[in-house]
Amino acid sequence: MKLLLASTSKLFGQKYLEYLREEIEVFFNHTDQIVFVPYARPGAISWDDYTAIAREGFLPFRIKVKGIHELDHPFRQLSDFGGIFTGGGNTFLLLKTLYETEHFTLLREKVINGAPYMGSSAGSNVAGLSIGTTNDMPIVYPPDFAAFGFVPFNINPHYVDPDPTSRHMGETREQRILEFHHFNPQPVIGLREGSWIQVSDKLFELKGPYTARLFRRDSIPIELEPGRFDLN
Amino acid sequence: MKLLLASTSKLFGQKYLEYLREEIEVFFNHTDQIVFVPYARPGAISWDDYTAIAREGFLPFRIKVKGIHELDHPFRQLSDFGGIFTGGGNTFLLLKTLYETEHFTLLREKVINGAPYMGSSAGSNVAGLSIGTTNDMPIVYPPDFAAFGFVPFNINPHYVDPDPTSRHMGETREQRILEFHHFNPQPVIGLREGSWIQVSDKLFELKGPYTARLFRRDSIPIELEPGRFDLN
Repeated sequence: MKLLLASTSKLFGQKYLEYLREEIEVFFNHTDQIVFVPYARPGAISWDDYTAIAREGFLPFRIKVKGIHELDHPFRQLSDFGGIFTGGGNTFLLLKTLYETEHFTLLREKVINGAPYMGSSAGSNVAGLSIGTTNDMPIVYPPDFAAFGFVPFNINPHYVDPDPTSRHMGETREQRILEFHHFNPQPVIGLREGSWIQVSDKLFELKGPYTARLFRRDSIPIELEPGRFDLN
Repeated sequence: MKLLLASTSKLFGQKYLEYLREEIEVFFNHTDQIVFVPYARPGAISWDDYTAIAREGFLPFRIKVKGIHELDHPFRQLSDFGGIFTGGGNTFLLLKTLYETEHFTLLREKVINGAPYMGSSAGSNVAGLSIGTTNDMPIVYPPDFAAFGFVPFNINPHYVDPDPTSRHMGETREQRILEFHHFNPQPVIGLREGSWIQVSDKLFELKGPYTARLFRRDSIPIELEPGRFDLN
């Protein structure tokens, strides 16, 4: 498998996909057209409008972007495209729509059979084993929380450290993930904004300027340094 | 119906239930024993341990607390108690356990038939129409997002205003609730920590020192002043 899983699609004060520019250039250098999955719909934007944003974001790479919803016969046509990009937004809505359109199985097979998959935020979250570590609000009810499972762990995008000055009584991100581990066995990688994970076959690499927070059941969380990592 | 729905069980630097002391005194003044629903399990604490915390919290009121899981025949025994308190924790876990134990229907009927119900955080969230506006992480998959529906709206506990200085790219609470309204019609009340809603039959009152943020579909959110309110 070939994956590029980013915590966020943009950094504060930057343009869409700007911080990932060099990485995307290499990741999709074999193709001039990819398919976009707009189902996470940030701000409930339409599939068309969201695809237009992705299309513009890929102009600098001279890569054409087609929304998966624009394909008349996605099951047949998907092989015409050199890769897949799933954008961020609401993870519950993304997963529900993937199941309802039956594109879940279609995309899963394609990626397992080698189609490069790029995700940001919700799009990276669904690459994990489940959406059980999303930060999103459950605005719709998906038929399952099971996600693509391209990687043998869960991702928590937009990971934030506890704020020691906070007087807020809601749980910290770390507390939430520790609770998750009482009910779920898989490791969780808290991916900070500006970090991404690159997967090439069975090689995993953390990229970007930051460490990531690695949570394993029954273990004290640790910081994962940028570079190759192995969860076995 | 008689409800006391609090945003949180404790305020920063205070003891458990401390800020609600006078209110609880009045709310449960007709009884010396209540049932506690420990299923939200903050930090995945056990039902017994969580009930012990609630038991201690109610000592100042000379009210005995029994965990609903401690009852041999909850369907028969529930009428022996003067009210119900559902504590905070993880809303997904709370709702899932309510459905699995079949206490969902039992509690719902009791409250509709007049048993006073107090909730904090997750316990207040499930008093609304759905858990679709929880802030919690979906650590388990409930068979439905439909909640008790004691009130004709949804509650967002621990409501926080957008931080204008934030460089974080995750959605603000307000953005999440606006997204919710693209897929769900019910009003949402963003209840700040330190606020609670009291319901007596069809009279609704916002209490505590803060305004609440009221979100109605297709309307600009407004601040609800403490005091009586009516959503019709």
